[in-house]
Amino acid sequence: MYLARVTGTVVATQKLSPLTGKRLLVVRKIGLDGEPLGATEDVALDPGLDAGLDDVVLVAKEGAVIATLLDADRTEGLPTPANVVIVAIVDEWSIAGEPAGG
Amino acid sequence: MYLARVTGTVVATQKLSPLTGKRLLVVRKIGLDGEPLGATEDVALDPGLDAGLDDVVLVAKEGAVIATLLDADRTEGLPTPANVVIVAIVDEWSIAGEPAGG
Amino acid sequence: MYLARVTGTVVATQKLSPLTGKRLLVVRKIGLDGEPLGATEDVALDPGLDAGLDDVVLVAKEGAVIATLLDADRTEGLPTPANVVIVAIVDEWSIAGEPAGG
Amino acid sequence: MYLARVTGTVVATQKLSPLTGKRLLVVRKIGLDGEPLGATEDVALDPGLDAGLDDVVLVAKEGAVIATLLDADRTEGLPTPANVVIVAIVDEWSIAGEPAGG
Amino acid sequence: MYLARVTGTVVATQKLSPLTGKRLLVVRKIGLDGEPLGATEDVALDPGLDAGLDDVVLVAKEGAVIATLLDADRTEGLPTPANVVIVAIVDEWSIAGEPAGG
Repeated sequence: MYLARVTGTVVATQKLSPLTGKRLLVVRKIGLDGEPLGATEDVALDPGLDAGLDDVVLVAKEGAVIATLLDADRTEGLPTPANVVIVAIVDEWSIAGEPAGG
Repeated sequence: MYLARVTGTVVATQKLSPLTGKRLLVVRKIGLDGEPLGATEDVALDPGLDAGLDDVVLVAKEGAVIATLLDADRTEGLPTPANVVIVAIVDEWSIAGEPAGG
Repeated sequence: MYLARVTGTVVATQKLSPLTGKRLLVVRKIGLDGEPLGATEDVALDPGLDAGLDDVVLVAKEGAVIATLLDADRTEGLPTPANVVIVAIVDEWSIAGEPAGG
Repeated sequence: MYLARVTGTVVATQKLSPLTGKRLLVVRKIGLDGEPLGATEDVALDPGLDAGLDDVVLVAKEGAVIATLLDADRTEGLPTPANVVIVAIVDEWSIAGEPAGG
Repeated sequence: MYLARVTGTVVATQKLSPLTGKRLLVVRKIGLDGEPLGATEDVALDPGLDAGLDDVVLVAKEGAVIATLLDADRTEGLPTPANVVIVAIVDEWSIAGEPAGG
């Protein structure tokens, strides 16, 4: 998982049905100093945390771990067709016991 | 997940049975400026969105998240033998609140 | 998924039981021009397509998507202990509507 | 899986419910000589091993393998929304039969 | 999947319970010429093949494909908390029909 800052949004009306009504956000990976790491950008699904522009979020990137996170999918027992998901909004972090960002 | 443009098609008559009748498309990853990113190309499964040549699509790349997306697989409870799948056709996107492409 | 050419075989008599009797092939990733891409080689499982030396194949590389593809595994409901699998033998492909290889 | 040293912690109050009450640690990949490898850092979930600052840990990075490790998830049969998990606290390791670190 | 040579072992007494009693081996990726490829090393789980130091093994690296390979896990229906697993001990391999190593 990695820290990222929310930098944008993506709009798509034609999508697979489990994604209906969910927000798609552009996230940019940041280092432990809070600065962007190169040009690494991903499109991530926000399953309901309502992350906002400039929020620091924790992103899980891989399929299975984030499958069935959405209620609709739990009901049907189906994986979610998304492999980059925001799993937490980060308040702060520390390195070697010292506050490092947040 | 990443944005990509549909650039080609792949034809294969001998394939694993869950892929029968599904389209295989060549997709090229693009940046948030809509331009191709290097020479990154993937062969992606279109599970029924009917993406066309030059469409901008959202691609999920990893197995489990996209398993059982096809009806045939749902019925049998089997994963789909594809790990690059088009999950949405993108209309537009924005960065920092400003329209960036689409 | 990516296009690859079959370049060799691997023999292993001591292997996990779900792999018993299945062929292990060396595959080399190729570009859309049909030429090898660098030195990228993988050992892939052929679940029964009987791909031959020099065939162009479509390779899925990741675990979950290719789980339970083998009959033995379906019966037991277990994933296949292989994460690189040949899912199709490619006839031809096209870019921007023009034939590109095959 | 790789060896890593615990270097920090991440605090997040708004997170997906399966992560509630679990610790999020910053881990830095190390080589077999015990030294950090470049700037590779990950945010990992500690599912209950209580790894401490400076501990050497074994990290599994991918979704499905670490799904349902938490009791709460086992009960519900749901994957854990984390794809970097600490699976062991390492005592020592050896190369070619000789002690190498620990 | 890739070919690798077993180069070392890792000892960990505090680990997640599904790993109890299983061996953790250091493996170094090798090319088709049998030579090491750079400094690529992984810690792999040996689910019972009893691979020894210097053995050439076939390694699957990803979670889901190798889930539930261990008896204990099958019983409980839980994935194995390991994403690098030795799936075969390699006898020999050939390229373009010619013996290449083993």
